[in-house]
Amino acid sequence: MPENRQLHFNLFLMGVGHHEAAWRHPRTDPAQAADITHFQRLAQAAEAASFDSVFLADGVEARSDGGWGPISHFEPLTLLTALAVATERIGLIGTVSTGFTEPYNLARQFASLDHISGGRAGWNIVTSAGDRAAQNFGRDANQAHAVRYQRAEEYLRVATALWDSWEDGALLLDRTDGAFADPDRVHEIHHTGEHFRVRGPLNIPRSPQGHPLLVQAGSSTSGKAFAARWAEAVFTAQQTLAEGQAFYADLKRQAAGHGRDVRILPGVVPVLGSTESEARTLDRELDELINPSRAVSVLSGVLGIDLTDHPLDRPLPPLPPVTAINGAKSRFELIRDLAERDRLTLRQLVGRLGGGRGHQVVVGTPEQVADHIETWFTHGAADGFNIMPPILPDGLTDFVDHVLPILRRRGLFRTDYAGRTLREHYGLPRPASQFAAA
Amino acid sequence: MPENRQLHFNLFLMGVGHHEAAWRHPRTDPAQAADITHFQRLAQAAEAASFDSVFLADGVEARSDGGWGPISHFEPLTLLTALAVATERIGLIGTVSTGFTEPYNLARQFASLDHISGGRAGWNIVTSAGDRAAQNFGRDANQAHAVRYQRAEEYLRVATALWDSWEDGALLLDRTDGAFADPDRVHEIHHTGEHFRVRGPLNIPRSPQGHPLLVQAGSSTSGKAFAARWAEAVFTAQQTLAEGQAFYADLKRQAAGHGRDVRILPGVVPVLGSTESEARTLDRELDELINPSRAVSVLSGVLGIDLTDHPLDRPLPPLPPVTAINGAKSRFELIRDLAERDRLTLRQLVGRLGGGRGHQVVVGTPEQVADHIETWFTHGAADGFNIMPPILPDGLTDFVDHVLPILRRRGLFRTDYAGRTLREHYGLPRPASQFAAA
Repeated sequence: MPENRQLHFNLFLMGVGHHEAAWRHPRTDPAQAADITHFQRLAQAAEAASFDSVFLADGVEARSDGGWGPISHFEPLTLLTALAVATERIGLIGTVSTGFTEPYNLARQFASLDHISGGRAGWNIVTSAGDRAAQNFGRDANQAHAVRYQRAEEYLRVATALWDSWEDGALLLDRTDGAFADPDRVHEIHHTGEHFRVRGPLNIPRSPQGHPLLVQAGSSTSGKAFAARWAEAVFTAQQTLAEGQAFYADLKRQAAGHGRDVRILPGVVPVLGSTESEARTLDRELDELINPSRAVSVLSGVLGIDLTDHPLDRPLPPLPPVTAINGAKSRFELIRDLAERDRLTLRQLVGRLGGGRGHQVVVGTPEQVADHIETWFTHGAADGFNIMPPILPDGLTDFVDHVLPILRRRGLFRTDYAGRTLREHYGLPRPASQFAAA
Repeated sequence: MPENRQLHFNLFLMGVGHHEAAWRHPRTDPAQAADITHFQRLAQAAEAASFDSVFLADGVEARSDGGWGPISHFEPLTLLTALAVATERIGLIGTVSTGFTEPYNLARQFASLDHISGGRAGWNIVTSAGDRAAQNFGRDANQAHAVRYQRAEEYLRVATALWDSWEDGALLLDRTDGAFADPDRVHEIHHTGEHFRVRGPLNIPRSPQGHPLLVQAGSSTSGKAFAARWAEAVFTAQQTLAEGQAFYADLKRQAAGHGRDVRILPGVVPVLGSTESEARTLDRELDELINPSRAVSVLSGVLGIDLTDHPLDRPLPPLPPVTAINGAKSRFELIRDLAERDRLTLRQLVGRLGGGRGHQVVVGTPEQVADHIETWFTHGAADGFNIMPPILPDGLTDFVDHVLPILRRRGLFRTDYAGRTLREHYGLPRPASQFAAA
């Protein structure tokens, strides 16, 4: 491990905070979730602190849980573009599912974002679980887990070929003889596969990064195999250091098998206070604002098991084997293991999940949070962290003002950007076009 | 006609100009077409002149014509978002085809743009002609003209239902009892049709305009029937005042039959000089930069007829009847009529089309251009104009600095915005949600 190995930080944007009751806490203003300048200020604050990137999760359905929502006023590609022109250096990562957007459209919009941002676009690849999303796109039910990953594999082959279809330097713009492009460096891709048929080329020149940084989050067996082949960064969720180390070692080994490297960033919810007691108070205040019946309804959707009639103060009922689950398998296992390990009642489980939806929640002083980050970083469990402030903007301000200075004093985090593009921030090479002459 | 009837102006954005050889002219810098700030400056200049809107055309294919391109570095939704956050009042209209984007995705992105811009989004609805686009989306050939319009009709029913699915006021954000939304004001749409099946609701609250302004450009019989039912503004192409008057009267009458009004804006390419001779020089310089063989190849694609072996200095060969054309029927008829009326050779025709792709080209002094605009506006052929500067940014600057002051002195164009939203600029009412209690 090199001496000057540095942490990577991603800010996971989420309305007025990641805690599911954040919008009810007096330290947030829920109206900000509808204000584009709120997101621009968050991105600017993260950029001033030299975060590698900001990130948006996504789903293509409104969740019904007795009520509706919360839902976002913004869609990732448009929101990230609004951030791109309000910032200069920070990376901009958006989630789009391979299930419901045509690859030509997706390739084009991400290439456009990469052009607009000067090489700062990233795509978080998800395959989307659940039937409700599928029902917004002409299907009765979602495809099976294995089919979704086969489709994602083919999707990536199409998208990367489209991004490469205009080689670097294909634009000539020769005013004298009127030659706009070099026909030898523009390629139809003629893809014909099980899920897609795409002629190409894309109608946008190759973008500053060649293609957006590829990010992935699935941690199932197929998810990890997919990440090892395609992902350049992985946002993951592990609860214990041992689990984090096992995941890290396994994914790095699999990626190395493909001759690749990947940055691994577990999610963490830092619940900060200037004393531990102050942090615990904030944590308790937030948990007390959770509406348990709503939370159980959301959990039922995530697990694919109806728990809405289960008594709140009893442990979970026996769960089916993961092989019977067509949802997000790794999230199912994580929640099951968490409930079993800590012998949680249903009420305790939704409280635990309400803070970070299965991600680590670290409650404490800036020193304690910095210690946690350093431990994972130096013990083979993380290359950095996906920061999920429980309340926004305050949780980000607290992290930037109080945790980052400690990590900088310890020599673990830079004070400024070294590169220009998102891929440079993560220390990864720019890909060559697959059509370029060797 | 009210005394204070005012012109509407839309700026049609197009790289470094609408003339097909604009990028070769010494008064442009072709590198600007790749620079997002070029487009931001154009939108800001149009806003400073209180244009109603800017507009982007689009296609989902790269055109091959012996060479490739020109193509854009940007895609409409992302580009318009980058303009939204760099402006405050001007409308932002983007083209998306009903052929190749899922209605849920389209509805969501336009709603997001409407939220980001504070109510300034517009959607120019096209059905997309030609097989090359279809081949990027899993089909061998495009659908027939009639099927495309049936699909567009159903698409609009789905999209408007999705935009209405969260009624105004559906968000409660009640921190005390934790109610995020009012379930009585959120609606699944349960659409089941020939082309689409969509459950809904959309996962984005109703946007400032209710839904984006609906714009359309097709002028075929089905195009006009569609526009009469759905469009709030129509960007059209007519060559002569008589044709313009006939189109205007017909569309207004058809729209009135549906109890609707529509703003009609013909496209015009103002080729300006401080003297008529200076304007004619610019026009000639541009036409001389057209590459005739490339232009014939593009024309062949537009007409769906291979003219690449036809002698340049001979009139067009006999053309098939419009009923045999599966492309853009109204564009086909416009080009055929133009060639016949003025007995043009193939070389003359591509020169004429090179200036404005079938739109009126007015070459002259600011007075002459203003006279042309006033004549159409006051003689029942236009509510305003879709301005297509031959070169950018110079052609916009010339129009704003020299033509608009004349029109303002004549009392035909406002000096500032009266409203906030795009629909207010066009003087049209905000639609109520179809689910709202009467």
